[in-house]
Parts: sequence; structure tokens; C-alpha cells
Amino acid sequence: MSDGFILDARLAGDTLVVGDLPLTRVLLMRDARYPWLVLVPRKAGRIEVSDLDADDQARLWQEVSLAGAALRAVAPCEKLNIGALGNIVRQLHVHVVARNAGDAAWPGPVWGLGQAEAYPPGEAERWIDALSEALGL
Amino acid sequence: MSDGFILDARLAGDTLVVGDLPLTRVLLMRDARYPWLVLVPRKAGRIEVSDLDADDQARLWQEVSLAGAALRAVAPCEKLNIGALGNIVRQLHVHVVARNAGDAAWPGPVWGLGQAEAYPPGEAERWIDALSEALGL
Repeated sequence: MSDGFILDARLAGDTLVVGDLPLTRVLLMRDARYPWLVLVPRKAGRIEVSDLDADDQARLWQEVSLAGAALRAVAPCEKLNIGALGNIVRQLHVHVVARNAGDAAWPGPVWGLGQAEAYPPGEAERWIDALSEALGL
Repeated sequence: MSDGFILDARLAGDTLVVGDLPLTRVLLMRDARYPWLVLVPRKAGRIEVSDLDADDQARLWQEVSLAGAALRAVAPCEKLNIGALGNIVRQLHVHVVARNAGDAAWPGPVWGLGQAEAYPPGEAERWIDALSEALGL
């Protein structure tokens, strides 16, 4: 069981749940501009990666790698972007984003740029199904 | 010895060398707006983190944690930002940036925002000395 973990309200509002890996909750950003996962360790009170113990830090980055591979499997891309920022939402979370030349932010970062674009009906669910399978969930 | 590793020319131009950890070359960004390190694995031809073998991936993230702790030790900050983007410079590199409310990009990401600000004479060298010591170099 998690130790009092509650997903941050802003993260919850901006995303859909893909599923749980051993350490992290995997979320799909509600933004059709980019295939974009967010991984949140299910541990309360963590802000920096260094707030996790060494085993969990290693597990976090393994799950980030797994998420990157899953994204690539369902959304071929030119470059993966990995980011742990947390300037606005302090709950520890790591972004894994599939980037392609010509996407809405290319070659800049995705964070804070413009407005999220809604997925057409059913499309986010199709992404979630495909990503769940690629993640072995 | 490195396996044919040559630091990307743009990274070399934008940074000063702090020193070498077991896997990565640690660089200080020539930008006085933020205390900003860049870690580059000294392995040729790597673009994604997943291009490193599992041991080197683990080592990379350990060195990122070490860099974050060193930054915090010499530049107390509100939040660390960690990013592996590589949309422009493809050679694998990880940014570790000390962020504070009110800094030039706060709360947005640092990448691609405005122009770098030069360090006053001698100041980058003082940062490098302090960071080298904090990194145990």
C-alpha cells in the first residue's frame, strides 16, 4: 500500500490514469499536441528525486526508461524529452514526452507553452490501451 | 579512456568545464541567470538515456543526484530542475539547474528562454572551484 499518497489535484485534473508500475502512477497528459506521460512515485511528501531512498531513485529512473520505451513503441518519435521540474506542482513527478520536429513546441521545451489541446473523443482511451499494453500493465 | 568521445561543439561553446565524474563530464553553463550544470556521459554516439547500458544509466542518474546535491550545497535553491531534452544538441546530456522564485524563467523552464547572461570576471571560476569541491573533484 502507499504511505498516504494522494495524487496532486492539478496533476489529477491535467491527466488520465494509465496505470501503476511498482513505484509510480503513470498518467497521460490531456494534451493531444504531444504523446506525454507523467510518472508520479506513490510516496507521500516527496518533492525532489533525492527525497526518495536510493532504491526508489533507481526504480524511478527504470520506470522512466520503461515509459520512454512504451511511448516510442506506440508513438515513433524523433526524441524523447525527460524532465523533473516541479516549479509549479511540487509533488515529485517526471515527464516523459515524445517529440517530433514540427510539433507545437519544437525544438523548445513543452512546459508552459500555449494551451493543451483536447483529444478527440475516444483517442485518449486508445492511447491508454496501447500504452498499458506496452508497459505490461 | 573514453571510446572516441568528443564534446559537442555547441555544448563546449556554451559551457565551462567543472571536471569529470566516473561517467560524465560536468559543465557549468555560461549563464549567470541560474546556477546550471550539464552532465555529458563520456561515451560516443549516445543520444537517448536508453543508448547507455543499464549500469551506465544507473551511474548517470547517480551523478545527476550528486550534481544536484553539489548545486544545493553552493547555491541554496527552491527547486532543482532536471532535464534530458536534446532536441537541438543531440549528444546525450542532462541539465541540472538550481531554480528560485523570481529567477529569469520562473516558474517556466529555463531552456530556450532569452539570452544567456555573462558571468562577471572571476565569478564563473569561483563557482567552478566551489562546485568541484562539493563534487569531490
